[in-house]
Amino acid sequence: MATLTGKVLIAQGGGPTAVINQSLVGAVLESRNFPQITRVYGALHGVRGIVNEHFLDLTEATTHNLEATAASPSAALLSTRDKPDVAYCQNIIKVCQAHDIRFFFYVGGNDSADTCRIVHEEVAKAGYDLRVIHIPKTIDNDLKVTDHCPGYPSAAKFVAQAFAGANLDNRSLPGVYIAVVMGRHAGFLTGAASLARKYPDDGPHLIYVPERPFTKEKFLKDVKAANSQFGRCIVAVSEGIVSPEGTPIVAQFTHGERDAHGNVQLSGTGALGDLLSQWVRDELKIKRVRADTLGYLQRSFLGCVSAVDQREARAVGEKAAHFAIRYNRDGSVAIRRVGNYAVEYHLVPLEAVARETMHMPDDFINAEANHVTDAFRQYVAPLVGELPEMERLSAPIVEKILQNSK
Amino acid sequence: MATLTGKVLIAQGGGPTAVINQSLVGAVLESRNFPQITRVYGALHGVRGIVNEHFLDLTEATTHNLEATAASPSAALLSTRDKPDVAYCQNIIKVCQAHDIRFFFYVGGNDSADTCRIVHEEVAKAGYDLRVIHIPKTIDNDLKVTDHCPGYPSAAKFVAQAFAGANLDNRSLPGVYIAVVMGRHAGFLTGAASLARKYPDDGPHLIYVPERPFTKEKFLKDVKAANSQFGRCIVAVSEGIVSPEGTPIVAQFTHGERDAHGNVQLSGTGALGDLLSQWVRDELKIKRVRADTLGYLQRSFLGCVSAVDQREARAVGEKAAHFAIRYNRDGSVAIRRVGNYAVEYHLVPLEAVARETMHMPDDFINAEANHVTDAFRQYVAPLVGELPEMERLSAPIVEKILQNSK
Repeated sequence: MATLTGKVLIAQGGGPTAVINQSLVGAVLESRNFPQITRVYGALHGVRGIVNEHFLDLTEATTHNLEATAASPSAALLSTRDKPDVAYCQNIIKVCQAHDIRFFFYVGGNDSADTCRIVHEEVAKAGYDLRVIHIPKTIDNDLKVTDHCPGYPSAAKFVAQAFAGANLDNRSLPGVYIAVVMGRHAGFLTGAASLARKYPDDGPHLIYVPERPFTKEKFLKDVKAANSQFGRCIVAVSEGIVSPEGTPIVAQFTHGERDAHGNVQLSGTGALGDLLSQWVRDELKIKRVRADTLGYLQRSFLGCVSAVDQREARAVGEKAAHFAIRYNRDGSVAIRRVGNYAVEYHLVPLEAVARETMHMPDDFINAEANHVTDAFRQYVAPLVGELPEMERLSAPIVEKILQNSK
Repeated sequence: MATLTGKVLIAQGGGPTAVINQSLVGAVLESRNFPQITRVYGALHGVRGIVNEHFLDLTEATTHNLEATAASPSAALLSTRDKPDVAYCQNIIKVCQAHDIRFFFYVGGNDSADTCRIVHEEVAKAGYDLRVIHIPKTIDNDLKVTDHCPGYPSAAKFVAQAFAGANLDNRSLPGVYIAVVMGRHAGFLTGAASLARKYPDDGPHLIYVPERPFTKEKFLKDVKAANSQFGRCIVAVSEGIVSPEGTPIVAQFTHGERDAHGNVQLSGTGALGDLLSQWVRDELKIKRVRADTLGYLQRSFLGCVSAVDQREARAVGEKAAHFAIRYNRDGSVAIRRVGNYAVEYHLVPLEAVARETMHMPDDFINAEANHVTDAFRQYVAPLVGELPEMERLSAPIVEKILQNSK
């Protein structure tokens, strides 16, 4: 099949990540190298920018500007929460036709993959030749098919560094410390807190993920046991933890905002952390109880990026250009883990990723459903890479004088 | 006056910082160089470890272990919230006498300085020769006399990087974003959020500090105006904001834990952020409102340190050893800013620092009491140093086709 000549259009959708601009810039720079590409457009605010014809001409962005942008967190093309239906996608196609756009790259999660799927189906019906590639991005790591998703390793690194520091802090002033981590349906990000553990008594001592039912009774029993054992207790808990009946724990006690899909607002509130710490304070009579909600810092904090994530996010963007422009293919770019640690990139059908959610496999969660396993740590460690230095004093204890003479 | 021969004792008190171990290690390594120092002890859990004779013999810590510890956040000797009275300090002195401790270095804030002051007064009465040096540490930057306090620059860097990322995130998905910053009585740390602003429309658009009364009416008016101007609004607010009557805002609506001094718990809860976002949602009818509480990450996050802060924290520890051991002096180590940017270290009387609180000077806060001034930014910028790269796309807007043809 002859490859197409025309413009490239790229957009970014959903929640931003620390490396989503690496994918953008990878696709832009690589596209600009192909002689059959007449222009490279970027849509502002995702699909909404497409139907509004709100485009930047990235053919004219300097390489220096693009490289500086690649290193910055959050969607440089700005984002959207719009989830297009068929009619919306038909409008996208009309705009592509008007501008002679022949390649559409959409960086996003499973909703964005679904948009790509619909656009791909509708262009076939419309008889318009448009290559559609989904470039994966999410901090939750909940995309199917791919071994892991760009954006996740950097967020995991943030979570690991947050818990590493919180563990040292809590060790110096002991008590119960609870931190709430993002991840509505998948516990991968919460599980990354386990990387904070260096010595056997380091936190997190307990980890709760959405894949296992959460009860107040079990939680308090676990905290009590850990607190007895270590004289303190650090808890990593996913914002998405649910009761055995499937209700989000936070929804049982708050009346937070709901999104367009009726989902309870989980992020941008300290409600869950405060609820859990209230339980510990009231029922276990532990005095020093603190809760943090890691919040938006997890996905946007300036200057906390995994080097592996940066490289891979760049590569999936570059690969999108090659699959579409050089090989005339549609699909979603996926990562396959080979060796230890190395990856390969391949293209999978859009239907395989669209709307699907990946959960933590069973062997990543311990039998008591209150921590992760070594298998999970082996999965996540190479993605995050080395953490900054953290060490304890190592020195002999001095013999007491006054107390020994009593 | 002849200098003393005997042991050095060092301890860490109060809330940890990212560089408190630099001061510890600076004092330990420098002390070990003096031939008249027989041993260097570290007390575990601050003054509590002293009265319990719970010491590590840091003479036997390897230099490598000390250097690795120096690079780690949080108090490596562990900390305490104990605030000793005269009787407690007399016990400290008894322990020092029993162990032939002739030099006591206490790394901490104004409470720790007060402990040093009492110990210094009581040794004079007891006729025991003990040099006492307070080594300054706080993320709030609320110590008197010193230009700024070690620990503050690194926390300020964390706050700046958090707001820089949050600004980019909020720019991509616009709404109102509120983040609560530590600082019970002083707005220095909250003000550091202003470093996140690169372009004129970047957040934070509003900054509220404890030095100025806070009212719901003024806050909502400010948010409404900023949101109209920028299509979004980023707010940095100190946990310690108070009503015109002097009541903490958070205390008006929550029943949080109180500490031994009757202070309302401000940290380790999302209550204030949730309260402010509820106001914005209810009264201004803005839909997307998110609140984060930066929490313990501000003082303990692994891997976010100001290089200036590391150097200065090390230096105040080293200087403590020289002032006490070489020059036989007591006092609190202070930083004087000279040139642009350079510092000198000097020793000030313990009474000048003990229990006193430094507030932001008037010329650091704008007239509307909702932002900081350029004078503040000039004060804080060299302490934090360069931030990681953050850049926007710079490319021409494409002319619309479909919408122009309508």
